[in-house]
Amino acid sequence: MQSATRIIGIDPGLRRCGWGIIESAGNRLSFIAVGTVTPPVSAPLAERLAALFRELSAVIERFAPAEAAVEETFVNAGVRSALLLGQARGIAMLAPAARGLPVAEYAANLVKKSVVGTGHAEKGQVQLMVKTLMPAADFKGADAADALAIAICHAHHRVANQRLRASA
Amino acid sequence: MQSATRIIGIDPGLRRCGWGIIESAGNRLSFIAVGTVTPPVSAPLAERLAALFRELSAVIERFAPAEAAVEETFVNAGVRSALLLGQARGIAMLAPAARGLPVAEYAANLVKKSVVGTGHAEKGQVQLMVKTLMPAADFKGADAADALAIAICHAHHRVANQRLRASA
Repeated sequence: MQSATRIIGIDPGLRRCGWGIIESAGNRLSFIAVGTVTPPVSAPLAERLAALFRELSAVIERFAPAEAAVEETFVNAGVRSALLLGQARGIAMLAPAARGLPVAEYAANLVKKSVVGTGHAEKGQVQLMVKTLMPAADFKGADAADALAIAICHAHHRVANQRLRASA
Repeated sequence: MQSATRIIGIDPGLRRCGWGIIESAGNRLSFIAVGTVTPPVSAPLAERLAALFRELSAVIERFAPAEAAVEETFVNAGVRSALLLGQARGIAMLAPAARGLPVAEYAANLVKKSVVGTGHAEKGQVQLMVKTLMPAADFKGADAADALAIAICHAHHRVANQRLRASA
C-alpha cells in the first residue's frame, strides 16, 4: 500500500476563491475538506488581498497538504479583469509557496478532461462528476467543486508522472 | 514641527520590482532607502512570487514604514501580460497590507504629475526630478526611481488630504 499524499486544489478569485483538500494513495482518492474564501467586497483592494492570503494560509496550516495545484486562469473579459484576477491568482499561488509547498498549474480544459473526460465540459458536469468521485464532499457552488476538480487533476497527473519516471 | 511619517512606494513587477522609502514631515521630504527586488527568472512562477513577497516583507520589516503606496498599473500589452503583472501587483499590495499598513493607489499619470508637473512625462524626466528632489538617493534604473516617485506622490497627497480634512 502506498502512503497517502495530501493535496490542496485552489480555484483563484477575488470575490470567491474555492479550495479543496483530498488525499491520493496510488489510484485511490479520498475527500478531506472543501470550502470557499469570500474576502469582504467593500474593503480596499489591499485588505481584500490580505484577507484572502490570511484565510488560505489558515486552511493550509490546518489541513497541512504536501502539494498544491492552481488553475491556469483563462480570461476573455479584457485587460482590466485580467489584472484584477491576476492579483487574486498571485495570492492563491503565494499562500502554498510561502509555506514551501510545490505548486503545479493546470489549464482549465485539462482539469475538465481529467474529471469529466472532455475538455469542453460545462460547470454542472464538473460538479456532478466531483460529487460522484467524492460522495462525502459537501461543497456548495462551482468554486469549491472546481477546487476539488483541480486537486483530482493533480492527483492523476502526479501518479502518471511517477510512472513515467519509474519506467525511464 | 510635525512628526515625520515614513512611506514606502512600490513599483510592481515580476522581473524587477522597485521600492523606495522616504520620510515626510510637513512639506519636507527626506530620502531613507531605495532598491529593486529581482526574483529568479528561471524559477517556477509560485517560487518567484514567494521570493518577491519574502524580499518586500524583509524591506518593510527593516525600515518599518507606516504607510504604503503602489502604482495603479496600466497595461496596454494584452490580457496575458495583464494577468502576469496582476500577480506581481497582488504581492506588492499584500506585503504591506499583511503587516497592517494602509496601502494607497495612484494612477501612473498622477505620479508623474506630482513629481515632474505633467502627467505625460517620460521615464528620464521622472528619474531626473527624483534625483533633484532627493540628491542623496543612490538609485539605479527606472523601477527604483518610479518607486520613490510613488512615495513622493503619496507624501504630497496625504498632506493635501489632511489640510482638506482640517479645513472642513
